Amino acid sequence: MLKDKNEQRTSISELGEFGLIKHLTKYFKIQQESTEKAIGDDAAVLEFSDKQTLVTTDLLVEGVHFDLAYMPLKHLGYKAVMVNLSDVYAMNGTATQITVSIALSNRFPLEAVEELYAGIQLACDTYKVDLIGGDTTSSTTGLLISVTALGEVTEQDVVYRNGAKPNDLLVVSGDIGGAYLGLQVLEREKQVFAANPNSQPDLEQYSYIVERQLKPEARKDIIKLLKDLEVKPTSMIDISDGLSSEILHLSTQSEVGCNLYEDKIPLDPQVISTCEEFEIDATTIALSGGEDYELLFTIKQEDFPKIKANPHLTVIGHMTDESEGINLVTRANQKIELTAQGWNSFKKD
Amino acid sequence: MLKDKNEQRTSISELGEFGLIKHLTKYFKIQQESTEKAIGDDAAVLEFSDKQTLVTTDLLVEGVHFDLAYMPLKHLGYKAVMVNLSDVYAMNGTATQITVSIALSNRFPLEAVEELYAGIQLACDTYKVDLIGGDTTSSTTGLLISVTALGEVTEQDVVYRNGAKPNDLLVVSGDIGGAYLGLQVLEREKQVFAANPNSQPDLEQYSYIVERQLKPEARKDIIKLLKDLEVKPTSMIDISDGLSSEILHLSTQSEVGCNLYEDKIPLDPQVISTCEEFEIDATTIALSGGEDYELLFTIKQEDFPKIKANPHLTVIGHMTDESEGINLVTRANQKIELTAQGWNSFKKD
Repeated sequence: MLKDKNEQRTSISELGEFGLIKHLTKYFKIQQESTEKAIGDDAAVLEFSDKQTLVTTDLLVEGVHFDLAYMPLKHLGYKAVMVNLSDVYAMNGTATQITVSIALSNRFPLEAVEELYAGIQLACDTYKVDLIGGDTTSSTTGLLISVTALGEVTEQDVVYRNGAKPNDLLVVSGDIGGAYLGLQVLEREKQVFAANPNSQPDLEQYSYIVERQLKPEARKDIIKLLKDLEVKPTSMIDISDGLSSEILHLSTQSEVGCNLYEDKIPLDPQVISTCEEFEIDATTIALSGGEDYELLFTIKQEDFPKIKANPHLTVIGHMTDESEGINLVTRANQKIELTAQGWNSFKKD
Repeated sequence: MLKDKNEQRTSISELGEFGLIKHLTKYFKIQQESTEKAIGDDAAVLEFSDKQTLVTTDLLVEGVHFDLAYMPLKHLGYKAVMVNLSDVYAMNGTATQITVSIALSNRFPLEAVEELYAGIQLACDTYKVDLIGGDTTSSTTGLLISVTALGEVTEQDVVYRNGAKPNDLLVVSGDIGGAYLGLQVLEREKQVFAANPNSQPDLEQYSYIVERQLKPEARKDIIKLLKDLEVKPTSMIDISDGLSSEILHLSTQSEVGCNLYEDKIPLDPQVISTCEEFEIDATTIALSGGEDYELLFTIKQEDFPKIKANPHLTVIGHMTDESEGINLVTRANQKIELTAQGWNSFKKD
């Protein structure tokens, strides 16, 4: 809906695959000591010496994970990196390198791919990760981005999903539900625009939640904060599929139960007001929304004093014995069993 | 053309993403010491201790890189892994782990994805690599596979593309041109089948070249052989885009020239006879065909005695001063400048 009709169009086929990669990556700088050799050989060469290597990968598909009608390509490039870095931070590690592979149909001119890479580069610069490889190919339809992120962590620092114990506190960073609601706002504007192409979207009052959807940030700062506070989580995961689904992962993998308190879930005022406008329940959005890329982790009770004054961290529950189950304790003090209703890309209506 | 009409069809959406990954990966075994944690957390955790880490990635797109009309899904899974392992071996390294991400449309039932993973598993078992992660999502159309391979190598052993010196010998493993010709045979059979669906393809006389296309092997054995022979290449690359393109990479990155001798290029008798049948020049096929996944490397002259008797290795030329250029020396002893005519997925007629 923000398409520039005068955009320049250079055909990618003129450059060829090697020319394209060279062109797109020429302004990327190497920032990590562990990168011995980045792009330009059969494989990248990395040197993690005594640290452990973290590897994670995510695939974003046009029409499934994003809609270019409202997702600017630069934001998409940025988000594709964030989604992966978030997984590295969720291991309590430092993200160090990424590979980016894209498949794109010939409806995309060079300028579009440059926009995408501008977003990838901004992410690399901001988060100090090196682009070390990738593959660029044509597709018969649409755009697809596959990112693999690497990171490093010492054996002492690594945090898995399975270390939570009964009585550990359940903590979440930032606030949640915004990304999903932002998507609902963008979808509504798309419908309005389809009905009336002259309409001008006014997204001012939704700026925070729209940004949560279009330009999420991976919580590198929280990993640093926890180190500074000398708190090592007993288990951790990032919130990509919704709070409910992630709590189930931590609890089942740790073989513990959990009580999540509805009134403790951190919600931005814009999330609350937009939920009222859309007439949907804010708790449902927080539990099932996904794409917040906040960190969800458990800490020992004794670490509570270290985090309690921190505005970026909220205790939302505690772990229990496995036999007590995984529950939401409502505002009315009722216990309801939590079920995963995270997003399933294979389920369509 | 080999479709089983009685195949079972189970819908993937019933399993969901987590269920699908669990189902597909349950028979995969961990074989590498360096794999601390494979699938099941936010990121895999690897431990390469004093070795360097190699990372490479490739994307295979239906309709661009493969045609399911003649590529069985099990072979496709196997090949997608080979393409990546080949890049690790081309660094003189040992492949240790892979991640596999797939996007697939709802025309694929669970049984099809199981076939694909059976091929991936066969590759993992045969080459002793661990599947440590991935992503599985729906696509609006077709099948796409993104594989990232990791490997390890000591700092002393790693071989880059840029180490060739004038007078080094240019060596290739196995024989080349077969994979491309196999593809031509399969394309022809597809046309025949389209015209007459009752026709039965007889591929007996093309068995070697069809197998080169459908089930290539990465040359792990050559890396071991070179170690046993105590030969460390001065530069190395794998042949994915055609001999010509790869020679240009080695020469330009090493800043040397090269003389490639037409009469030395190793061709299988089936490649020669099929070229005659198709009335195409075998040298052209060898130079530009691609997908052979053989290794192309340079060695010091003094290492020649160590490799000369070996049936798996052929000296096909030598490096020269950069000023002499990169040339094919024909059977008629003419020098022709080599130009890259490797495959470009963005160029379509």
